[in-house]
Amino acid sequence: MHLAILGATGAVGRTMMEVLAERAIPVERLTLLASERSAGTTLPWQGREITLGVPSDEAFRGVDIALFSAGASRSTEWGPRAAARGTVVVDNSSAWRTDPEVPLVVPEVNAPSMAARPRGIIANPNCSTIQLVVALKAIHDAAGLGRVVVTTLQSVSGAGETGREAWRLEARGERAPGSPFARTIVGNVIPQIGDFDAEGWTGEERKMIGETRKILSLPDLPVTATCVRVPVDIGHCVQVMVETERELSGTDARHALASFPGIRLAESARAFPTPLEIAGRDEVFVGRVRTDPFLPRVLHLWVVADNLRKGAATNAVQIVEQLLRG
Amino acid sequence: MHLAILGATGAVGRTMMEVLAERAIPVERLTLLASERSAGTTLPWQGREITLGVPSDEAFRGVDIALFSAGASRSTEWGPRAAARGTVVVDNSSAWRTDPEVPLVVPEVNAPSMAARPRGIIANPNCSTIQLVVALKAIHDAAGLGRVVVTTLQSVSGAGETGREAWRLEARGERAPGSPFARTIVGNVIPQIGDFDAEGWTGEERKMIGETRKILSLPDLPVTATCVRVPVDIGHCVQVMVETERELSGTDARHALASFPGIRLAESARAFPTPLEIAGRDEVFVGRVRTDPFLPRVLHLWVVADNLRKGAATNAVQIVEQLLRG
Repeated sequence: MHLAILGATGAVGRTMMEVLAERAIPVERLTLLASERSAGTTLPWQGREITLGVPSDEAFRGVDIALFSAGASRSTEWGPRAAARGTVVVDNSSAWRTDPEVPLVVPEVNAPSMAARPRGIIANPNCSTIQLVVALKAIHDAAGLGRVVVTTLQSVSGAGETGREAWRLEARGERAPGSPFARTIVGNVIPQIGDFDAEGWTGEERKMIGETRKILSLPDLPVTATCVRVPVDIGHCVQVMVETERELSGTDARHALASFPGIRLAESARAFPTPLEIAGRDEVFVGRVRTDPFLPRVLHLWVVADNLRKGAATNAVQIVEQLLRG
Repeated sequence: MHLAILGATGAVGRTMMEVLAERAIPVERLTLLASERSAGTTLPWQGREITLGVPSDEAFRGVDIALFSAGASRSTEWGPRAAARGTVVVDNSSAWRTDPEVPLVVPEVNAPSMAARPRGIIANPNCSTIQLVVALKAIHDAAGLGRVVVTTLQSVSGAGETGREAWRLEARGERAPGSPFARTIVGNVIPQIGDFDAEGWTGEERKMIGETRKILSLPDLPVTATCVRVPVDIGHCVQVMVETERELSGTDARHALASFPGIRLAESARAFPTPLEIAGRDEVFVGRVRTDPFLPRVLHLWVVADNLRKGAATNAVQIVEQLLRG
């Protein structure tokens, strides 16, 4: 199998290489692509150095599967061009996620949707959406979903290496002129991820709404999100309020979550995951499962995952595994 | 007027002295009380040094108003003893907040409730509750409250000087053996403030539920909170989902908030307060006012305040101002 990574030098691209190796994906040939700036440099892969190239029709020749994580404009340009030559593109950008002809896939949730991919492109969802839908699907299967309201606490690596570098500079007391954040992030929290629309919702919030509905095949599900950047390196948290269609006890909710693939449920109502503890892990961690003291059929959950892994690289590699299987 | 502060060396106690001076409260005599450990040391007040004492019946003799911020056990012991000699006690601990004979006061919201104080004690609410109820009262007056679900992001100073010191030590890469936090707080977020009860709710979450209902005189209001500690020095954030009884447009909601005393509303739907910007300020800052895209009569708000000031010291001093007025 000939696999390519576009955006190999980024935070997600590097994690993709780690996860491919860890999960022993049978990659016979690996092509690494990045921007002109990085072309000609090398990255280590299984004991040797691979020289980085730039995307071109030639570069994608013979590539079976390409993982894209180089931003929406690169994906818009190169997704169809690679797919036209028979490469299956697994795209981590937002470019194709809302396209009705592109499946948006979290393997534990909607793997069968991958089969129909008329454009040759499969989209990897937004990081915070992935961990949310894994938890929601477990609840949906048990009792149906009525409404969902979430608040996220998202780490700086969600803004890539640029975000991590700004955070590191600020933590050393230095200025971070290239910061992607609207305010100082060290010692602060910022309720803005992406640009605001006319109604005052951010891009990240709109993604969580639209992508959650698409992945769960619930186009009318009321979902609302408020997304907040926090000074954490890796690991997003989502506080979820979910109203179910049918009654679901706390015990049954915990059972539904614990038995769902890819979820690690905290062992008690007093235990909970935090980003620092789960960074580097591939599962979705759920804790603080509570039934609302007053509202009927309402549960509250605390959901944490490594945004570079399950929120990006691991999910993309799981899609590759599905492709190889079927 | 003879005023005393019990807990003068703490984060809130020191801020009380600052706020008393800033607001030119006519303090003729100031008595500062703390633990045995601090007794005999001095703190500066209006150009001179005041020697700290320890609480005793003698120490409260002739004191007109005493501000307590030394923890619940001190307040349980000394509140009634000071009040028995005619001192009005304004207590910042959780000791008396749920007592039906103790008014729980946020002056902008329920100042008239101060008049009846059979125990001679007035309770200052929990920090995150104060900023929440100010915003909720504005909405309640405009359209009535149906249900409230909040997620908080609370700064380390909410755990006092001990919390700030742990955060500073960790930020320098040192161990913080006296940390009040259940996990490392630098580079992390912790969804636990206070102890867990049998249903999995924390002390802080139960306070927000019970105190919000009491202050608003809405004993049956469905309120649920998830409280999270974040690596921020000063300033708590509360993301609020509020369902109103009657229809309320975004414009009318913004008008209700902007015209409410003590609220500073962000100038546009794209503007928002952050903790780092509002630390040191006395108002409650509200931004990101949005109507839910799917749920009828649901608003989302982002509410930020300085937890040492409006969340503690400033609110207590505002209660003193009310007492002096009448």
